Amino acid sequence: MKYQKHVFICTNQKEAPKKCCGEAHGMELVEAFKQSMKDRNLVPTMRAQRTGCLDMCAKGPAVVVYPEGVFYGNVQLSDVEEIVESHLVNNQPVERLRLEV
Amino acid sequence: MKYQKHVFICTNQKEAPKKCCGEAHGMELVEAFKQSMKDRNLVPTMRAQRTGCLDMCAKGPAVVVYPEGVFYGNVQLSDVEEIVESHLVNNQPVERLRLEV
Repeated sequence: MKYQKHVFICTNQKEAPKKCCGEAHGMELVEAFKQSMKDRNLVPTMRAQRTGCLDMCAKGPAVVVYPEGVFYGNVQLSDVEEIVESHLVNNQPVERLRLEV
Repeated sequence: MKYQKHVFICTNQKEAPKKCCGEAHGMELVEAFKQSMKDRNLVPTMRAQRTGCLDMCAKGPAVVVYPEGVFYGNVQLSDVEEIVESHLVNNQPVERLRLEV
């Protein structure tokens, strides 16, 4: 496994008024994950990156963490540290943000 | 696990002359994967989608299949059917395209 954790953050942008994750907020999330992971020396054994539509538009902003395939919804910038610390560092998914999939 | 197989295809485009996967070829691959998977009734238990840079630029076009985290390099349109049939349907990764990661 190249990455112990591989975080994909939706940055898809659909035309208004469709509900979706959105490019602007998505890229802010990507940068926040990257910075937080760098700060904890999780790079390069883990990786965060932008991705296209995760098919969770109505529940976005959406994120999925592999290899375990945990999906998160309504992810805000203020949630990034908790996901990184709890899930990526301590392997405990953040249940309050987890999507039933 | 929402998707039995989740295929991420790099569609990142860097400025020439940097070697990278490329948006045009990447999107052709995404469409080919989606069509092939539909044809085999693998949707919606499996999903293919575009993603940003997988950090395999020099070995691209790059694809990763989760949850197993198998990376493929130099993926051409003519390789899609083999990856879908061998890896997604029969769970046998295509060794000739697999990257050592």
